[in-house]
Amino acid sequence: MTNKTIADLFGQPLSVVNVGLSSMAQSVRDQKVPVVEVDWRPPAGGVPQLRMTKTGVDIDDANEEVCRRIKQARPVLAGMGIARDVIPGMHDRMLLHAGPPIAWDRMCGPQRGAVMGALIYEGLAADEREAEKIAASGQIEFSPCHHHHTVGPMAGIVSPRMPVFILENKAFGNKAFATQNEGLGKVLRYGAMGPEVYARLKWMETDLYPALDRALQSMPDGIDIKSLIAQALHMGDECHNRNRAATSLFLRAIGPALARTNTENERLAKVIEFIDRNDHFFLNLSMAAGKAALEAAEGVEGSSVVTVMARNGTDFGIRLASMTDRWFTAPAGMVQGLYFPGFTEKDANPDIGDSTITETAGYGGFAMAAAPAITQFVGGTPQMAVQATLEMYEITFGEHEGFTIPSLNFRGTPLGIDVRRVAETGILPRLNTGIAHKDPGVGMVGAGILRAPEKCFRDAFAALGTLC
Amino acid sequence: MTNKTIADLFGQPLSVVNVGLSSMAQSVRDQKVPVVEVDWRPPAGGVPQLRMTKTGVDIDDANEEVCRRIKQARPVLAGMGIARDVIPGMHDRMLLHAGPPIAWDRMCGPQRGAVMGALIYEGLAADEREAEKIAASGQIEFSPCHHHHTVGPMAGIVSPRMPVFILENKAFGNKAFATQNEGLGKVLRYGAMGPEVYARLKWMETDLYPALDRALQSMPDGIDIKSLIAQALHMGDECHNRNRAATSLFLRAIGPALARTNTENERLAKVIEFIDRNDHFFLNLSMAAGKAALEAAEGVEGSSVVTVMARNGTDFGIRLASMTDRWFTAPAGMVQGLYFPGFTEKDANPDIGDSTITETAGYGGFAMAAAPAITQFVGGTPQMAVQATLEMYEITFGEHEGFTIPSLNFRGTPLGIDVRRVAETGILPRLNTGIAHKDPGVGMVGAGILRAPEKCFRDAFAALGTLC
Repeated sequence: MTNKTIADLFGQPLSVVNVGLSSMAQSVRDQKVPVVEVDWRPPAGGVPQLRMTKTGVDIDDANEEVCRRIKQARPVLAGMGIARDVIPGMHDRMLLHAGPPIAWDRMCGPQRGAVMGALIYEGLAADEREAEKIAASGQIEFSPCHHHHTVGPMAGIVSPRMPVFILENKAFGNKAFATQNEGLGKVLRYGAMGPEVYARLKWMETDLYPALDRALQSMPDGIDIKSLIAQALHMGDECHNRNRAATSLFLRAIGPALARTNTENERLAKVIEFIDRNDHFFLNLSMAAGKAALEAAEGVEGSSVVTVMARNGTDFGIRLASMTDRWFTAPAGMVQGLYFPGFTEKDANPDIGDSTITETAGYGGFAMAAAPAITQFVGGTPQMAVQATLEMYEITFGEHEGFTIPSLNFRGTPLGIDVRRVAETGILPRLNTGIAHKDPGVGMVGAGILRAPEKCFRDAFAALGTLC
Repeated sequence: MTNKTIADLFGQPLSVVNVGLSSMAQSVRDQKVPVVEVDWRPPAGGVPQLRMTKTGVDIDDANEEVCRRIKQARPVLAGMGIARDVIPGMHDRMLLHAGPPIAWDRMCGPQRGAVMGALIYEGLAADEREAEKIAASGQIEFSPCHHHHTVGPMAGIVSPRMPVFILENKAFGNKAFATQNEGLGKVLRYGAMGPEVYARLKWMETDLYPALDRALQSMPDGIDIKSLIAQALHMGDECHNRNRAATSLFLRAIGPALARTNTENERLAKVIEFIDRNDHFFLNLSMAAGKAALEAAEGVEGSSVVTVMARNGTDFGIRLASMTDRWFTAPAGMVQGLYFPGFTEKDANPDIGDSTITETAGYGGFAMAAAPAITQFVGGTPQMAVQATLEMYEITFGEHEGFTIPSLNFRGTPLGIDVRRVAETGILPRLNTGIAHKDPGVGMVGAGILRAPEKCFRDAFAALGTLC
């Protein structure tokens, strides 16, 4: 792409970039959608070709290994536990948060709201004012979820007594963790506070968690979350912002064990009801499965593949499989989306959450072609959902044969964001996401789509360049 | 279409007939699939234009009314009961069967097998030999399901003591009935016999039915099946041969009530397990919902719209909304499909079952574009699934705004097969279906696709012509 800058593309996110058959472009044009046809000659200058590290590692070989591990991963829901008991490094005065490292003073509104709410839920603060004081006092250690094999949607706050799912990657033995999903609207992860938020979290601790935990303890093989994701991609989910099918399949999978191990039937009914009323219940499982798969692919020297993309609502950060201790960050972007009645883009916080682990693992926004109905939630059209996926093949190293897209003739999803291809093509990863209100205490205001910021990828590419 | 006969088209069902944008045809050709482009000029001669009956009824107006009623229908699962108690006209010596009327001596193998199995299940015969004797003796009255507001998949045998779902069309007050789905493989509706078949039917009578019935009795609003179908069409189902999403949504919808009303938890677990292990569980509900919607549209003078398509495995029959007492029949066709290991097309019975009520009601094969993954079950490619739906718009009078297809930009499904348009275009309805072994006692051997036979439509068109 010799005559388009990244900014050019980024500035017109609603036009279509054609990367497939030119007949495809024609079909899109026939529908009066502008099409940018991109030719794939490497730029005349500017972007160096990175093929080999100074230590003699072939980057393609390294990426092959990374993608092999991600595809080979077999994340299974093996059990549950309380965060402080099961998450490595977690302690009574620690709160985990989404995104790259950040201190209280730079935290965005919804992340602050979720921190304050979590302190009240934990019984460490009596009210919001006290919670704010404690949060700012230095008594609380803030640490990214990603530093603890954990992923948290939106604000991503995990506090010590919260119950968490334990995902075990049966192919590699590593584990990943995520909380139970609260639902949409006025919920902690969107920065909401208040009695209904704490009451729900408490019920999730005293009723939902024990019920699910008992059921899982009776299932020696656990629940194969990779298989549920693969099926859900054939059922209109992309497993980031649409999880209706996956949530349904999860309830089917755990249903018999739930019934066998929970003999207080009214409580059992409420558990089923809670899951039934939250089409996003599966999201946290989808995220933890992605984390379990990607973490097994970390530490491969020379790889240019991204294994972490995460946002704390202030910064967007990525990490490479070959540089797992280093975050490349940039300011978090604004989401283009559909808003709930009464809210507009003026209310929106910048992009936030660890849920971009799904795109990193080859689904979510990268599998939008599998989920045309998601456009009713995040905006856009079904045709653009297909184009989004087709475009992502241009910046990924491989395809995930385990996750296929029926409408693309069962092609594997785009897998393994290669910072070299991002640099060469100027195409930035596309993301689906929820939108939090920018102020603490409000909650969710909408959902939408955006691209990852360029700077993270440019910096990561440059860092890789110094090794080549 | 001036230079192709219906037989020409029917003789090459696996080639693509392009009816949309010509760029669409090009995309298909790019994939080396032969494309027949059809131009839509009315034939030079031969097919008369039917617009008005001799009694002064405008056929378009009549069809408008028929489609309005189908779309306005609101089929709700209102309860359950035992066939002989709730199905009008049912008695202790009656067996209902799929398709148009047929006597024992003309019944195909699987329908005979299902009759014999039902007689053993009912306790009317001790073994297959006795069952065959009784069936042939004239002691049993055979009657089409469709004559009793009922629909039965495959052989479609409903016997007096079988439990049935009761669908109530809340917009018009009429009811429709269907049995509980047994699952795939060696099951009565595919003509299988044997202890496992009867044991399953017995369990469905003594355990499954009471559990579901108790749950439904606690749900005063019932379960809105139309809404579940609409959602499932956004989740990769077409609700005929793919019901994975709809089955999941059904379990979600009834789950809390099931848990509340069934306190024997091991039995409850088995009920959930049975539904979880049968992705086709929803099929019978989908069919009964279609029947409830279509029956409310019957009796509209002058309409050229089909309100029944059904097969008994020997004959294929249709009825028009304007001629509800008259079956137009033709020999049932052979299915082109995918076979289970060990079986081939030589084992296949001709097309059988009332499940074509789904296509008649605007989903099933007519909504294949919504279900690209179904091609793994019935054969073909996702592209052909889209083409199948696009083609059906050419022979339907309207579109069902309540049932939309995300990948077609949320276009309503093709609704209301118009025998005039079938005659004018030579395009025959496309169907998805399971395949039964031709011999009694074996069961399911595969699944596939085919077109309805021309003769029924030609005869119905001719009958309408005599009134114009």
